Amino acid sequence: MAKGEWKKSGTDDLPLTGRSECEVFDDGTNTFFWRAHTLTVLFILTCALVYVTLLEETPHDTAYNTKRGIVASILVFLCFGVTQAKDGPFSRPHPAYWRFWLCVSVVYELFLIFILFQTVHDGRQFMKYIDPKLGVPLPERDYGGNCLIYDPGHPADPFHNIWDKMDGFVPAHFLGWYIKTLMIRDWWMCMIISVMFEFLEYSLEHQLPNFSECWWDHWIMDVLVCNGLGIYCGMKTLGWLSMKPYQWQGLWNIPTYKGKIKRIAFQFTPYSWVKFEWRPASNLRRWLAVLGIIFMFLLAELNTFYLKFVLWMPPEHYLVLLRLVFFVNLGQQAWIVAAITVTEFLIVVKYDPTTIMLPIPFFVTQCWILGIVLILIWTLWRFFIRDITLRYKETRRRRQEGSSDRDRVPGHADGSNSATSGRSKLNGNMDTVRHRKS
Amino acid sequence: MAKGEWKKSGTDDLPLTGRSECEVFDDGTNTFFWRAHTLTVLFILTCALVYVTLLEETPHDTAYNTKRGIVASILVFLCFGVTQAKDGPFSRPHPAYWRFWLCVSVVYELFLIFILFQTVHDGRQFMKYIDPKLGVPLPERDYGGNCLIYDPGHPADPFHNIWDKMDGFVPAHFLGWYIKTLMIRDWWMCMIISVMFEFLEYSLEHQLPNFSECWWDHWIMDVLVCNGLGIYCGMKTLGWLSMKPYQWQGLWNIPTYKGKIKRIAFQFTPYSWVKFEWRPASNLRRWLAVLGIIFMFLLAELNTFYLKFVLWMPPEHYLVLLRLVFFVNLGQQAWIVAAITVTEFLIVVKYDPTTIMLPIPFFVTQCWILGIVLILIWTLWRFFIRDITLRYKETRRRRQEGSSDRDRVPGHADGSNSATSGRSKLNGNMDTVRHRKS
Repeated sequence: MAKGEWKKSGTDDLPLTGRSECEVFDDGTNTFFWRAHTLTVLFILTCALVYVTLLEETPHDTAYNTKRGIVASILVFLCFGVTQAKDGPFSRPHPAYWRFWLCVSVVYELFLIFILFQTVHDGRQFMKYIDPKLGVPLPERDYGGNCLIYDPGHPADPFHNIWDKMDGFVPAHFLGWYIKTLMIRDWWMCMIISVMFEFLEYSLEHQLPNFSECWWDHWIMDVLVCNGLGIYCGMKTLGWLSMKPYQWQGLWNIPTYKGKIKRIAFQFTPYSWVKFEWRPASNLRRWLAVLGIIFMFLLAELNTFYLKFVLWMPPEHYLVLLRLVFFVNLGQQAWIVAAITVTEFLIVVKYDPTTIMLPIPFFVTQCWILGIVLILIWTLWRFFIRDITLRYKETRRRRQEGSSDRDRVPGHADGSNSATSGRSKLNGNMDTVRHRKS
Repeated sequence: MAKGEWKKSGTDDLPLTGRSECEVFDDGTNTFFWRAHTLTVLFILTCALVYVTLLEETPHDTAYNTKRGIVASILVFLCFGVTQAKDGPFSRPHPAYWRFWLCVSVVYELFLIFILFQTVHDGRQFMKYIDPKLGVPLPERDYGGNCLIYDPGHPADPFHNIWDKMDGFVPAHFLGWYIKTLMIRDWWMCMIISVMFEFLEYSLEHQLPNFSECWWDHWIMDVLVCNGLGIYCGMKTLGWLSMKPYQWQGLWNIPTYKGKIKRIAFQFTPYSWVKFEWRPASNLRRWLAVLGIIFMFLLAELNTFYLKFVLWMPPEHYLVLLRLVFFVNLGQQAWIVAAITVTEFLIVVKYDPTTIMLPIPFFVTQCWILGIVLILIWTLWRFFIRDITLRYKETRRRRQEGSSDRDRVPGHADGSNSATSGRSKLNGNMDTVRHRKS
């Protein structure tokens, strides 16, 4: 989870200390803005509690009071978290912003756990407490259908199939991939995940009917236009962020109004820039980690669709959007993201095991097995077999050198650098020489 | 909240960095022990969730499932908190220990908030979900009565009144004050709070009958024997801790078994020792803070008694004990302690306004008004009037000096040090010279 900022920072000494790669200037005058204001929050919280619980009449409606009690507990938890939760690597626009989203995701995770422990019927009906319109089965929809780009059957508007697909999901796709690019910060990783998801849609359209799209919807509109443009803009933004100067002056120290406004806008840019390269093939551990991250990313995206299917959420419901909004804001804590993804998947499995277990078509299974086998073989070759070959060559070369240099100082023939100099850019510049206790 | 340890510490570099006053030796070999093991916790959590939710049959009992869902949410929250919550100043026996108690107190605070939003009847009945025996009115009890130390009416056991008072509250008082002394670390503060609480019992015995005790129970058994002994032992322990060497060797680096066992036992002593002095009169801000802390301490102790009264908890119920156990473990985060104390008080006010509003006897009111007026006058004199007098004298002296030294370099006549040199020990050694923008 690498995002714009990468500075480890405490609450008190936020903008002053830093171990970032790029040069940062900070005159440290924002201290009031950066403080957590714990006592102020406590005081306001107390006043609100006194007002609501002592001065207002408590209605004699147990269901209403229960609901209000739960909402109040959540709000108090958010108050606690915004002031007291651990800071992550991000400090812009304000650390409290990230603490807030961390706490929102904790609340969401606890809600998921609760849902997970209910029976399927109770869980679906429980959604009625959040929105009384929920908890009813979704209507059957007719997907797929006419895939002609130019439909001669409609002389008035032959391109109507394309206009039909131009719904709210187009900007959602674009924006989603723009933000994901800011997170992942690598063109290749983004493209792989984007293309992999379309493959997943193909593979799972027998389970979820709304995965079945026209071929041009999959590849041109989704991958090329929406995702591709999002990734392109994201990479451009990253390029700009890596070049821009990081000078943080206090608002009072800036003389002009234009400067002040620019400073406020720049508060939403990272505090500093840290170069990050994935280098997936630099060692086995990193390779497995990258595979794991791609897997979790795809699982989280699939959950979006499966979860609303099993919990009977209409796709245009505001809760679906809300979930996406805070998923985007959640880059800080990989732990809670992973926990949420796993819990969501468990809910899907528990609530609709039949859909999940629908047998995958034979052709699709073959393709997946082929893909997995290829990855396995490559992993084996890259991290085990190739190494053995290299080390064999190395030993032989060293022995030859040893026989000619026997009268010189022994033991310094660490020639693995030259042997690995031909490695591709994939491996990166560091971590190339792996030390083994052989 | 000053307790044994005072080291600010992150999760990763715990025992290596430190800004303590005393000298600490640490060979830093405990790193595995100190890590948060976030991934291990996540993996075990996932396995447990898979087992309970997918492999076990979900019973068709909504109430049972709801209860289980809430308990599971709390457990997941604790898992999250133990690994991810912010570290406080304490690191012994393990930072996770303090993170755990912090999270327990957050759960307790949220439970209190929920209770606060219910009607009085619902709130009391809600306790039945925790223990089915709760939620019934407490029986009336006969307190006070015979206060003769030597009762000639019982020739067989004339001291029976004393033995009657020797119940489980004697060790509880002792232990409570032992731990409070470790927290407060000041003989005077402890004695003031201990004596003040007996005064509060006298003042409020018309509201809570179990505050009415015999005079020798108040002053000899509570203040002198139980509390006094606890404070004495606490101060002795603090004295030992301030003298003992702080050398932390890794367990594997200690050769003998005796040494290893000693090292494990010492894990429960602070990581380092930081001298702390309250110096309540050193400035106005500190004086008000000390008054506020004493007030919160007394309010928290009163809450123990009032809360079990309004929620119909029998005094010997395990929940009462549990609350005390985690209150003791909760020194880390003053914020949540304050929030809990305030919420508990609000519950008391909401659930039983009549008891709280019972008019205080005229004599008691007079005593309290006298006490408050005395404190007010002293505060005014100490921080406002005495200062004006001192500054007047100072200005006069300086003017006299100025008239004689007019030919020397001006502006360096900072003579306030000599003027304040006669201040009592109450003011401490530092912070004595207050700088004003006059």
